[in-house]
Amino acid sequence: MSRTSGQVHIIGAGLLGTSIGLTLSNLGLDVSLEDSSPAVTKLAIDFGAGRELKETDLVSIVVVCVPPDVTADTVISALTRFPNAVVTDVASVKSSVLEAITAGNADTSRYVGSHPMAGREKGGALSGRPDLFVGRPWVIAVEATTVATAAEQIEKLALDLGASPIRMSAAEHDRAVALVSHAPQVISSLLAARLVDGLDEDLALAGQGLRDTTRIAASDPKLWLQILVANSEALLPVLSHFSEDLNKLIVSLQEVESAGALSVIAKTLEAGNQGIARIPGKHGSRNTAYASLVVMIDDKPGELARLLNEIGHAGLNIEDLKLDHAAGAQVGLVELSVLPKIEAALIELLATKGWKLAG
Amino acid sequence: MSRTSGQVHIIGAGLLGTSIGLTLSNLGLDVSLEDSSPAVTKLAIDFGAGRELKETDLVSIVVVCVPPDVTADTVISALTRFPNAVVTDVASVKSSVLEAITAGNADTSRYVGSHPMAGREKGGALSGRPDLFVGRPWVIAVEATTVATAAEQIEKLALDLGASPIRMSAAEHDRAVALVSHAPQVISSLLAARLVDGLDEDLALAGQGLRDTTRIAASDPKLWLQILVANSEALLPVLSHFSEDLNKLIVSLQEVESAGALSVIAKTLEAGNQGIARIPGKHGSRNTAYASLVVMIDDKPGELARLLNEIGHAGLNIEDLKLDHAAGAQVGLVELSVLPKIEAALIELLATKGWKLAG
Repeated sequence: MSRTSGQVHIIGAGLLGTSIGLTLSNLGLDVSLEDSSPAVTKLAIDFGAGRELKETDLVSIVVVCVPPDVTADTVISALTRFPNAVVTDVASVKSSVLEAITAGNADTSRYVGSHPMAGREKGGALSGRPDLFVGRPWVIAVEATTVATAAEQIEKLALDLGASPIRMSAAEHDRAVALVSHAPQVISSLLAARLVDGLDEDLALAGQGLRDTTRIAASDPKLWLQILVANSEALLPVLSHFSEDLNKLIVSLQEVESAGALSVIAKTLEAGNQGIARIPGKHGSRNTAYASLVVMIDDKPGELARLLNEIGHAGLNIEDLKLDHAAGAQVGLVELSVLPKIEAALIELLATKGWKLAG
Repeated sequence: MSRTSGQVHIIGAGLLGTSIGLTLSNLGLDVSLEDSSPAVTKLAIDFGAGRELKETDLVSIVVVCVPPDVTADTVISALTRFPNAVVTDVASVKSSVLEAITAGNADTSRYVGSHPMAGREKGGALSGRPDLFVGRPWVIAVEATTVATAAEQIEKLALDLGASPIRMSAAEHDRAVALVSHAPQVISSLLAARLVDGLDEDLALAGQGLRDTTRIAASDPKLWLQILVANSEALLPVLSHFSEDLNKLIVSLQEVESAGALSVIAKTLEAGNQGIARIPGKHGSRNTAYASLVVMIDDKPGELARLLNEIGHAGLNIEDLKLDHAAGAQVGLVELSVLPKIEAALIELLATKGWKLAG
């Protein structure tokens, strides 16, 4: 079943290490793991993420899943400890890690950096999930000097974990994540920081927009401090451009009567529209267009099941479903996303069965 | 049933006007409506949001649901056209509207501004939903000069629509929405604007963090230009503080070796943690804690129904449900949120029935 063969050893049993261990163990692979904390090692083993490492083990692949600031040292030591293994890491920054490893006197022909674009706000072994990487991009950092067979082994590992491997250089990776991950983190944190001094009665008006824009501000400051510092070179141009745009907007709002001011504000909002249109769809394509229907159901056990039962009996497949539950209301709103080609059939079915469509 | 009595007339049949009309009509109230576009008026009437206005009508309440830049003029004209009615509006800014109405020579004793904290990215009559306001804050803008009975009538209207009325002055309202709504809109648009020049391969790494932080950047630029300009006075201090914080962070990232630089970055991230902790929970309380379980199901018609059927048969009620559908994978992930008191029963049921829990 699996593309990977041989024993996989995981160093660091946090969210990523544990999730990798769970999936590979489920595939029947021989997985060992260790964490600097013996208690965490034991927890992850109990959790089913792998077994303890034995002195006689012949490890084929080592996956280093430790915080960014100790990643390079851990990789260097792993290259020495496991002289026949290909070693990868999963840190969110790749250039600075690669530089430190190259500077350390290690056999870098067996090292291939990587980065799964997956995570949760909650860290730790118990947050590990076997599906964490399914459908997610997994960057395989390849340089001119990378040994092809080593890169292929890490690529197969990513495929076994359900991810979509993408090859790019460490520098390309760092530029990409500065834009799509690190800048959003900084901006979200700065926006949430504005709330610290807000009045309770002001915050009582918070809606979904504020919640969405600030959700990732709940992330771990210790981890993100390391990431931002390690990728400052790629991140700074994005933040500087943002700052210039913001300051232009502030000046325009200060003098809305002056020539061109309204145009600056309108263009900012329009650029936002254009930017968001460039984000690939949930399933990877740029134009995933599902048809979406909202059905009102009574808020009681079994109603949603009855709805989905009738849809299932008709052989219609639902791509996405969101249940929205209004406070105090006796109705729930079920948003069903389906392929456009079955939308008409679904509408007809719902009407026949007496379901109420909202909106 | 309803607290409101008499005929309600709605001016402007967009998302808000139509949603108000639908709910009040469902309650059995006599609702008339008009839109500057006769086609839109007809559409909203067909949709069930009300009937056409007749010359002989005696209107009790007028709800002005037009764009912010024409709100004041429409309110002034409504006060003249409907000499016995209390008039409210639902614009996202309140001080500038109030000033313009006060400056216009109208009977302001019958005017009470208001603002429902509800909306969708999609506008228009067909996006109207009878549940749009359920559980949402609805600001009733009261000043020292506001006539108590008039404010009470608008408060009852908000309650009939399922909203939670909150009294504050126009100035207090504008300060609050600058922080929790208008600043997030600006920041989200500016962040999304950074993507316009991004490379396709960089954007391919986009994850949920980027999607959440930029979601509201898809909002209507024409509407938001009006809102930002109308509320620039309250918005500018928030944006200026943000800009100062951002610039401090940029300087620290440029010189991470200098004294205090790391501390500035760490404090920014920690302030983000503190800020997000101040946002009240989805249902208005600060600590809505649902227990959350993730079940893996096969991706075929009827599987979700079977799951929910079994939960429904056991008499267990689901508060929220999210179906996540991994690209290319033959499994779906169903996140079930339930009241903590039934979590154990649900886990037992799922195990008995052979469902796989993820994570």
